[in-house]
Amino acid sequence: MFGDMMGMMGKLKETQQKVEATKKRLDTVTLEEKSNDGFVAVTITANREIKKIAIDDSLLQDKEQLEDYLILTLNKAIQNATRVNETELGAVAKEGMPNIPGMDSLFK
Amino acid sequence: MFGDMMGMMGKLKETQQKVEATKKRLDTVTLEEKSNDGFVAVTITANREIKKIAIDDSLLQDKEQLEDYLILTLNKAIQNATRVNETELGAVAKEGMPNIPGMDSLFK
Repeated sequence: MFGDMMGMMGKLKETQQKVEATKKRLDTVTLEEKSNDGFVAVTITANREIKKIAIDDSLLQDKEQLEDYLILTLNKAIQNATRVNETELGAVAKEGMPNIPGMDSLFK
Repeated sequence: MFGDMMGMMGKLKETQQKVEATKKRLDTVTLEEKSNDGFVAVTITANREIKKIAIDDSLLQDKEQLEDYLILTLNKAIQNATRVNETELGAVAKEGMPNIPGMDSLFK
């Protein structure tokens, strides 16, 4: 039992390190999202940091439309980034977890 | 041992339900972030969904400045939302975890 506990703690420590390494790696993974007509383009990392926003000149004529376009495109970008983030980190965390039925669903 | 396992599974199921309930509740928690001069204001939920972007007319004259303001203010808003999200969900998950030293750090 004591040996089990030590093994489990060692595995958790290893998992923590893998989680940290994965988080760092996700800073370098970028995703692009555009509005349907391409008038707004957003570049975001898999850690949900916005790197670039490109707005077409035509949108500067109508502020409300611009704001709406930004909200839609940014939310799609954030959702995509979150999906990649959770998939990558979830895989690492699941791998390192003690095998208790139902536990993996906590990482979705 | 069998009893322990059943108790652990029951607790995990309960935790999953609490996590789901917390996620739902975080949809109703909104945070506001503004640029220093207040020319860009962003409203975001604790689940990182942007609800509102308000741009001052003056920023429409300079697209590059507008894009820079948006990136800065949005990233601050997303970071704040993430902090609230992780604090709230982390507290629920930690409470429901079997007590293994080091495990809680996986939820940070």
